[in-house]
Amino acid sequence: MANPASGADKASFDVCGIGMAIVDIISESSEAFLKTHRVKKGVMTLVDEARADFLYSRIGPAVEMSGGSVANTVAGIAALGGRPAFIGKIRNDQLGAIFRHDLRTLGVHFSTPPAIEGPATARCLILVTPDAQRSMNTFLGAAGGLISADIDPDIVGNSKILFLEGYLFDKPEAQATLMLAARIAHEAGRLVAVSLSDPLCVDRHREAFRELVKRQTDILVANEHELMSLYQTESLEEALKTAEEECFLAVCTRSEKGAVISSGGRRIKIDAEPVPQVVDTTGAGDLFAAGFLYGLTRDMDLAICGKLGALAASEVISHYGPRPQHSLKDYIQKRIGKI
Amino acid sequence: MANPASGADKASFDVCGIGMAIVDIISESSEAFLKTHRVKKGVMTLVDEARADFLYSRIGPAVEMSGGSVANTVAGIAALGGRPAFIGKIRNDQLGAIFRHDLRTLGVHFSTPPAIEGPATARCLILVTPDAQRSMNTFLGAAGGLISADIDPDIVGNSKILFLEGYLFDKPEAQATLMLAARIAHEAGRLVAVSLSDPLCVDRHREAFRELVKRQTDILVANEHELMSLYQTESLEEALKTAEEECFLAVCTRSEKGAVISSGGRRIKIDAEPVPQVVDTTGAGDLFAAGFLYGLTRDMDLAICGKLGALAASEVISHYGPRPQHSLKDYIQKRIGKI
Repeated sequence: MANPASGADKASFDVCGIGMAIVDIISESSEAFLKTHRVKKGVMTLVDEARADFLYSRIGPAVEMSGGSVANTVAGIAALGGRPAFIGKIRNDQLGAIFRHDLRTLGVHFSTPPAIEGPATARCLILVTPDAQRSMNTFLGAAGGLISADIDPDIVGNSKILFLEGYLFDKPEAQATLMLAARIAHEAGRLVAVSLSDPLCVDRHREAFRELVKRQTDILVANEHELMSLYQTESLEEALKTAEEECFLAVCTRSEKGAVISSGGRRIKIDAEPVPQVVDTTGAGDLFAAGFLYGLTRDMDLAICGKLGALAASEVISHYGPRPQHSLKDYIQKRIGKI
Repeated sequence: MANPASGADKASFDVCGIGMAIVDIISESSEAFLKTHRVKKGVMTLVDEARADFLYSRIGPAVEMSGGSVANTVAGIAALGGRPAFIGKIRNDQLGAIFRHDLRTLGVHFSTPPAIEGPATARCLILVTPDAQRSMNTFLGAAGGLISADIDPDIVGNSKILFLEGYLFDKPEAQATLMLAARIAHEAGRLVAVSLSDPLCVDRHREAFRELVKRQTDILVANEHELMSLYQTESLEEALKTAEEECFLAVCTRSEKGAVISSGGRRIKIDAEPVPQVVDTTGAGDLFAAGFLYGLTRDMDLAICGKLGALAASEVISHYGPRPQHSLKDYIQKRIGKI
């Protein structure tokens, strides 16, 4: 199959992400706090507004930064010098304005109209424990209100790759909206990439994910836990094999063990990039996806795409917050030369 | 004069701060950006909402953290193990909720009712240049709406030290409110400390500041530029002499040159604490005040009070953001032993 994401293509955007428009509220936490407040460690738990308010009242001083898994990925693609777009739902409130500002100022095209009523802009309480692990508590808010009318077919059809966020599967209408966007992309001859987002999220919507992966996914992005959950197997090898049969490409991230790319029977192992200190793992998978998808849109070899993913992830885990602090292009060029 | 701030006193609070309830929006900036957008370097400039929105639309991705000069000081006093209170005006909006959360969770008593109409919670765009200097652009918003009814005489009368923020002089009614609070404190036999906040602010309200300092100030906290501006002299020595005649104590911070404490004819020089890297000087003066005032409420020797100020300042300039990241008590005890 020819690579419709290749550089020869004249699309307006490299990647169009559809995902959660959310602001992260980041606070340091102890293991004891997680236990006392029954916060599940290392995963994303959906919470209602009352629980979000309760947890917020218990955590210490926090810092606010724009987040969102696929939003972090498109931010990373911009920081690599690419041309990304984003579709997601904020409300017309202060956190929504922060989210929009932080994306647009990076050069990400973002024009989804904000909701003018209903729940507030989504927020995610991220508790970072001393081991750099993050435990996320998400109030979906306005972000879950994404509807078909929010999909701009011009943007989706003019992006080399459409990248869909699994977290949106938690809302039935948002799920239908992702399916619609995937169809639009494929009708325009584009590639569709899907992030499974979270093992618990896969558990909640396994059948719908299986359907999306089988019918509309060219590139599956997942960590090993998500992938094994999707196919209900304890063998990563088996999960990769099934993914490979169903998609053009499967990308499986494995934390400090690096990543595996699986395509047409080939398995490419990618080493994790060493960093002086892991401070906060928030955004690691999102930034791996950024580097990988960016490489793909530039028609790079899959091993190089994976290397870019590992490098982008290494930057984001070296500091607090889910997005690169500086130009990823400079960061990577200092390490491996011109990209 | 006996020290009404001494530990023998049974006040409910160590320090009650009255100041700007404001959220900082912190972004890295180049010198060229400051020039192009005519942002005055190293000082605080008041901006209206339109200018704040314009500047925000031009800066890069930002991080949001609670700030405010005197609010940073009371946060620091809490991080030292003290018992502070704060009086300041937020609106009932998302940034207001962030400000309130970040203070209360530190253990700062904060019960000023939020405004339910009028301008939004104050925000300060802080542009940090590569030399770690910060240039501040403040939209006063709800914070300038502090009125006499917001002053709880029980809190003011039961705090060893009342600490007033000069920035509030930019609003006439807030200015009158500070004067009222100072009278309440003195009637209860408490000390009144005043921060001059900013040289431009002193320029705008020199006469009112002179009046406040002369009649109602026991402890004057200022940097050398503010102090020389107050007394319109180019000689720091002369300014210190006048301040000393008018107040019980004058504390003058001098950036990397440390600080000078002036009291009853004594001049005590305080060295700046060396740090491995100065990252962001936001909050340096505020945290010096925190350490100094905390020492005073514990009846410590003035040289020790100054040392605590320098240590607290050294922590806050070692990272982004205007407040300590961890327990200041631990930070300081690791360096000079039990406090």
